[in-house]
Amino acid sequence: MQQFGIGLAGMGNVGAGVYKHLLRNRALLRERLGYEMNVQRIAVRDITKPRGCDVPAELLTTDWRSLLEDPSIHIIVELMGCKEESLALILGAIERRKMVVTGNKALLAEHGKEIFEAALRHKVPVFFEAAVGGGIPIIKALREAFVANHIQSIHGIVNGTSNFILTMMTENGLGFADALRQAQDAGYAEADPSLDVNGGDAAHKAIILASLAYGFWVPPEKVFVEGIEHLTANDITFTRKLGYRIKLLAIIKAEAGEIEVRVHPTLIPEAHVLASVNHVFNAMAVRGDIVGESLFYGRGAGQDATSSAVISDLVEAADALESPRRHLGFMPHGLYGTCKPIDQICSEYYLRLTVEDRPGVIAEVAGILGSLQIGISSILQPEAAEGDVASLALMLHTASNAQISTALTRLSALSCVKKPPRMIRVEHFS
Amino acid sequence: MQQFGIGLAGMGNVGAGVYKHLLRNRALLRERLGYEMNVQRIAVRDITKPRGCDVPAELLTTDWRSLLEDPSIHIIVELMGCKEESLALILGAIERRKMVVTGNKALLAEHGKEIFEAALRHKVPVFFEAAVGGGIPIIKALREAFVANHIQSIHGIVNGTSNFILTMMTENGLGFADALRQAQDAGYAEADPSLDVNGGDAAHKAIILASLAYGFWVPPEKVFVEGIEHLTANDITFTRKLGYRIKLLAIIKAEAGEIEVRVHPTLIPEAHVLASVNHVFNAMAVRGDIVGESLFYGRGAGQDATSSAVISDLVEAADALESPRRHLGFMPHGLYGTCKPIDQICSEYYLRLTVEDRPGVIAEVAGILGSLQIGISSILQPEAAEGDVASLALMLHTASNAQISTALTRLSALSCVKKPPRMIRVEHFS
Repeated sequence: MQQFGIGLAGMGNVGAGVYKHLLRNRALLRERLGYEMNVQRIAVRDITKPRGCDVPAELLTTDWRSLLEDPSIHIIVELMGCKEESLALILGAIERRKMVVTGNKALLAEHGKEIFEAALRHKVPVFFEAAVGGGIPIIKALREAFVANHIQSIHGIVNGTSNFILTMMTENGLGFADALRQAQDAGYAEADPSLDVNGGDAAHKAIILASLAYGFWVPPEKVFVEGIEHLTANDITFTRKLGYRIKLLAIIKAEAGEIEVRVHPTLIPEAHVLASVNHVFNAMAVRGDIVGESLFYGRGAGQDATSSAVISDLVEAADALESPRRHLGFMPHGLYGTCKPIDQICSEYYLRLTVEDRPGVIAEVAGILGSLQIGISSILQPEAAEGDVASLALMLHTASNAQISTALTRLSALSCVKKPPRMIRVEHFS
Repeated sequence: MQQFGIGLAGMGNVGAGVYKHLLRNRALLRERLGYEMNVQRIAVRDITKPRGCDVPAELLTTDWRSLLEDPSIHIIVELMGCKEESLALILGAIERRKMVVTGNKALLAEHGKEIFEAALRHKVPVFFEAAVGGGIPIIKALREAFVANHIQSIHGIVNGTSNFILTMMTENGLGFADALRQAQDAGYAEADPSLDVNGGDAAHKAIILASLAYGFWVPPEKVFVEGIEHLTANDITFTRKLGYRIKLLAIIKAEAGEIEVRVHPTLIPEAHVLASVNHVFNAMAVRGDIVGESLFYGRGAGQDATSSAVISDLVEAADALESPRRHLGFMPHGLYGTCKPIDQICSEYYLRLTVEDRPGVIAEVAGILGSLQIGISSILQPEAAEGDVASLALMLHTASNAQISTALTRLSALSCVKKPPRMIRVEHFS
């Protein structure tokens, strides 16, 4: 039976899962594939660290570079999760015509262009299903299943930690800090949760999805990112009364030769299926010009789900060793190429103002919005006034982010507006 | 630029969609693929019939056999939707080493074994993403994304027509006949809707999914099938009060070396995401031993969604012409091979009885269930008694279908039971 050699770089949570499941489901894989995949060598930082699975000592090395020079290794699995070293390993593998599987979303987001230029030059594929959505095959779907489609939009809940926090805030009425603590207690958030809650991780995934959909590697600085750290229990309660749920969404759209890529807390109608994606689950709604709307849902992270994606990439890589692939992971195609700046991106908005509780206030607020050509679809007072201040919740029609920024500045300057206005963007799914 | 020739057999709804979208998104496909796919010849039954798209007259032929002998045709797309002729075309193509793309679920369900034995013998792949779930890439997911997983279960809403009917019954309180009429008026049900409402179409799809997941072609006679024709507005109303929705589910499970494949109306908890899949949408929840639960949702039928799947298969076929594939569409692997007969399949049950409204009746009913070792989890009287009869709704613990059949027979024989008992199976998703 044919044998393929794997070099595993990194044996943290996911690396250990890949090793464990490759062994555990070895018989099934052998039957389904007709060949065997053997881990030949594992590069780790610390050989003595416990891995949660039995690894023969002779497989371990602290020298990741040795994987590149080992002729028995045909496929390199990069799960080190660093920047420079991961990039050097991937580029080194490509040069030596070893296939690459990686789950390093931060690296792909920042160095995707360079990596896939090298992949094209050397005709060596790089697979990265594990980088977005854990066990959800969204990369394969965009690349293969929807190949005939102009992708019109992708709306994704792609960060499980922040989705867990929002779920706790929604279901249990917690504030952000308490919900974050729950996520940390449950093992869903790291001691430093910044990248999860500030939208950075979701932005990495948005970049990868958008790049695949539109055929050019989206520059990170073109992506608008806002996290969930500033959401309050009040925001959640008020918007629920209006029939919405707040989710941290990655939003990708194409229109008239331009694309927009953004990550921010978003009000979505509670009837939309994305609104019921809770806890650490991820989901992506994809709209194509032929296929219409479809949705993918599953575990977006974790050892097991992510290992499943890595092993499916390993199989693709082994198949590609047998017979070369046209598709090298990312194929540039230049239908779009321009990212809209956030100022020009339009959406609807939810606005919450803390104002003086007296007649004439609504006229002042509406006057500013009207002067900026921003339409109001509803104004609500979601709760009784407290003392001499009251809350006003406004739902606004479609306007650009430039318009809404100006409105926020002018509203803040009103003497009747007592606190900085709160604005959250709204998506209705046409 | 490299050119691949396509022979299109059948130009009904889906065939016309494939032709139309191949032309419409030609530039995109050319950029993404680096080659061109050209329809060389189209076999139709009636050349004069309008197709809803412009087709050059010289492409049309009434002789589907001519596609086989045309050396400019590399890939045959079988969308004739018949039995003998479709089978002859597919087998003829395989023998001539032309790749095959088909959406013919009935044919695959009945002749899958034969077709894929031929495919293996000649090493010619047969692609069939369009056969299940329209634009939802469930075939690709099972075959590739979840290759590392023992599939533990698949729960699918795979027939849009019956899902539309059930949605109308649930949302508008209609009876089956009225809901069917609405489906026909909306163009979602054919004049003869039998195969959609009797579960036959869903069973074809269940066979295909189960065969892919478990590596042997499941014999149609091993699949238990019950349709939605006998559901009443009462069933819908009562089960909603209990917190359930009724869906026509394809259920596929593996346990202890045996699999079960069945299609029947099923109570599912309203909080489960499958319960909110409404109208003509399809969805499949797949549980794998590594990846956990994931769900795929989208348009399960229709010209556009199905064309999207056919074109993605065409791309796979063209790629396979360039470099041979290991995977020929279906690869036998023999982990399981035995289908449990329905009598041995276990589930929970909902039972509705029309009984005399007098003391002692519940004791008689409970006595029969108890004597068969069937546990009762709750008994409800979902509405006031009408005259001297009352409705009893019972939720029963897990029991085999053999046990429940005996119970139904014995309950029917009770003098206090006034109408044939109604039984619907229940799925809780562990």
